[in-house]
Amino acid sequence: MANEKKAVESITSMEEDFGQWYTDVVKKTDLIDYSSVKGCMIIRPYGYAIWENIQHQLDKMFKETGHVNVCMPLFIPESLLNKEKEHVEGFAPEVAWVTHGGSEKLQERLCVRPTSETLFCEHYANIIRSYRDLPKLYNQWCNVVRWEKNTRPFLRSREFLWQEGHTMHATAEESQEETQRMLRVYAEFCEKYLAIPVVMGRKTDKEKFAGALETYTIEALMHDGKALQSGTSHNFGDGFARAFNITYLDRNNQLQYCHQTSWGMSTRIIGGIIMTHGDNNGLVLPPFIAPTQVMIIPIAAHKSGVAEKARELKNQLGLKFRTDIDESDNTPGWKFAEHEMRGIPLRLELGPRDLENNACVLVRRDNGEKISVSLDGLEETVETLLADITASMYNLAMERRERMTYTAHTFDEMKEIAANKPGFIKAMWCQDPACELNLKERCDVTSRCMPFDNESVSDICVCCGQKADRLVYWGKAY
Amino acid sequence: MANEKKAVESITSMEEDFGQWYTDVVKKTDLIDYSSVKGCMIIRPYGYAIWENIQHQLDKMFKETGHVNVCMPLFIPESLLNKEKEHVEGFAPEVAWVTHGGSEKLQERLCVRPTSETLFCEHYANIIRSYRDLPKLYNQWCNVVRWEKNTRPFLRSREFLWQEGHTMHATAEESQEETQRMLRVYAEFCEKYLAIPVVMGRKTDKEKFAGALETYTIEALMHDGKALQSGTSHNFGDGFARAFNITYLDRNNQLQYCHQTSWGMSTRIIGGIIMTHGDNNGLVLPPFIAPTQVMIIPIAAHKSGVAEKARELKNQLGLKFRTDIDESDNTPGWKFAEHEMRGIPLRLELGPRDLENNACVLVRRDNGEKISVSLDGLEETVETLLADITASMYNLAMERRERMTYTAHTFDEMKEIAANKPGFIKAMWCQDPACELNLKERCDVTSRCMPFDNESVSDICVCCGQKADRLVYWGKAY
Repeated sequence: MANEKKAVESITSMEEDFGQWYTDVVKKTDLIDYSSVKGCMIIRPYGYAIWENIQHQLDKMFKETGHVNVCMPLFIPESLLNKEKEHVEGFAPEVAWVTHGGSEKLQERLCVRPTSETLFCEHYANIIRSYRDLPKLYNQWCNVVRWEKNTRPFLRSREFLWQEGHTMHATAEESQEETQRMLRVYAEFCEKYLAIPVVMGRKTDKEKFAGALETYTIEALMHDGKALQSGTSHNFGDGFARAFNITYLDRNNQLQYCHQTSWGMSTRIIGGIIMTHGDNNGLVLPPFIAPTQVMIIPIAAHKSGVAEKARELKNQLGLKFRTDIDESDNTPGWKFAEHEMRGIPLRLELGPRDLENNACVLVRRDNGEKISVSLDGLEETVETLLADITASMYNLAMERRERMTYTAHTFDEMKEIAANKPGFIKAMWCQDPACELNLKERCDVTSRCMPFDNESVSDICVCCGQKADRLVYWGKAY
Repeated sequence: MANEKKAVESITSMEEDFGQWYTDVVKKTDLIDYSSVKGCMIIRPYGYAIWENIQHQLDKMFKETGHVNVCMPLFIPESLLNKEKEHVEGFAPEVAWVTHGGSEKLQERLCVRPTSETLFCEHYANIIRSYRDLPKLYNQWCNVVRWEKNTRPFLRSREFLWQEGHTMHATAEESQEETQRMLRVYAEFCEKYLAIPVVMGRKTDKEKFAGALETYTIEALMHDGKALQSGTSHNFGDGFARAFNITYLDRNNQLQYCHQTSWGMSTRIIGGIIMTHGDNNGLVLPPFIAPTQVMIIPIAAHKSGVAEKARELKNQLGLKFRTDIDESDNTPGWKFAEHEMRGIPLRLELGPRDLENNACVLVRRDNGEKISVSLDGLEETVETLLADITASMYNLAMERRERMTYTAHTFDEMKEIAANKPGFIKAMWCQDPACELNLKERCDVTSRCMPFDNESVSDICVCCGQKADRLVYWGKAY
């Protein structure tokens, strides 16, 4: 048995070293591999299949809200990146520069896109003429590059995959509606399909996107009490439109500037799934995005009829669920540990005695519960269980978040919680950037968001003691 | 009426200037736009939707043949690219180099991947240990960059989208089988779904992929008689495996080198669709990949019941076909011309008289045929028509290819045909590279492929007159 459990025992426990636990999980479950390209990762088949499932659902939700996909160039000429001042200041320090094509030096350097506002703006300036052309609701699925110093698989890598929506609207009201609509799409996606509870809110000016008027965010809380910004949506107003001269003729034949949004979710969310649901046995995958939802393991497969029935069940369940069967010559114990580590939501065991009773055993990955069920109506049983697993995973994560959310009323209280209790800290803020900076420098917390559901946990700023009516979630973040 | 036809009249006729016709079509049907990034294109929603439909079907065919998707880094360190000698010689002159990250100069230059053999090899060397790990059947959908001098939308651009399959096998036989299997997948995809007839065959050594043992190709013939290499499949033998030390322990515990393939199809195929099926009115899209398969146009929509019924038909047909409705205030004539130009396979006209008769008018884009059909059983009628359109488009393309395929027995004949008759030229070749070069220099033709269906149109080489038993398709190519 010692040998059978080898795969799992080699994962460092979370309590011992959370960072090492994370690294062990992403490597040992074959989600990623490293390459000789520093700071970039290889997303292996098991990891990429999760991304494909994420893409599939998000893309559907984008199309249902009227968006279409496009493909913009990978490169941005330096002069184009320079057009919007705040934006270039935010991104220039972390872009990769192409200087040569073949053996020739380029006349102008090209940066590898860190984000594509500038390219979309140039295109929109080209194609928008009148109010009839609006709104433009574009999205693209692509890779982007940001030259980060400290990298972690999924969480922060020099290249990552994402989608970036970029939309243009006739009025400020419409761009504001779009910004919030897409944030709600992200929140719904996280909560319903990934079982990750999120706090929706607005970023402070200090934390907002380079060039944005307002940035909205969904923030999730990881196992170790650190926050993960899981999706963002930006309202640019007409700032870029003025810089790029994106105008339209309105119904009264007056020239107006367009109003703009962008919003993105990336492969970073896979890191969020791992750190929200994983445990010391490895991954725990939400059924909706698990590459394999049901893994069938025949027990004593040499006994008459077991292997045949197991394959029959694979075909039967395969019509409705992503189902696989492990017929390798490893022992059942090894298989249990392996598929548990890989986070497969449901394990189906079928042995000779089950077969006699027209039954099988189902084992849940999330809570280890083991039940014997009839083979009659198996699809319905599996469907109900998968839905219940999603709900339980969400509830468990929500309970943990509530347990790890603290309230601070004074600076000393804030400092004490920040130093000793990992998690979110709710505290009032007077909206003075000096207080925000002070909390960062002296308590090592950043503002995560000003939640849509504003509360009043006190009537003074946690930092300066002046009057304050704005609640902020503070914390340490990835 | 003059005004209504404006959109179409601005497309240059093929006979007048084929290159300009192509440019007009891709621009005026909103497939692409140019940007300030020289040689790179923006794929607009209408063009990208075609690519999504292509991806969807190809990905399905790859998965059905056992392949899984992965994501490798965008960058290749110079030292990694240099590992396989023939490969680097082929690609180094046309790669883009990243030299700086942020404000720092990189210690080693990174090239933006022109293709990913080297990255896959490094990864495979890392993860393959034993015969149990084989075969590895990986694919990735991504962007690649080749610093071309002369660019054309879809056909040759500095950045393009593609898929690249990279597989590893235990034996030479298996890698050879895989190479041919994937070529057949490409051929089936082109013929069945894109209605493009192709010639399958092997490339000569001169025309094969840098580093490959053998390259297989599917070649299609465009309207102007030029060939388009539409998909390729390469057998690398163990060449890269030796350079990258990719070995496995076989069943007898002996260390063996792996055998490798790669295969790719790109957004170039969209250029192939345009130049195979398009006409002087614009695009003609194969139903299978058309973003809109049926466009409903209400006639006299203000008359009682017309608009309602048209919308009802949209919902009804929308369950089975990609269906849209044009309720804009443009005239029917303008709409007809517009949707014709955009290549929509079927137009459905519904007017008050049709409504009275429980009928509608269907107009085929491929041959202009116009039929009045009953609204009863409309789905079946549309389904049959779309299948018939695909078959007719294929037949038309095939007839043209046959009409434009010539046979040359002597050098003079070759020269005369090459100078005056656009198309494929079938001629025997002694397999001496000197003759191939001679034909290129003096007749301006390259070898397109040595077809799987070898024929004997003569028993001597068309160039030198020596004994020859190998048929080659020659031609001018994109």
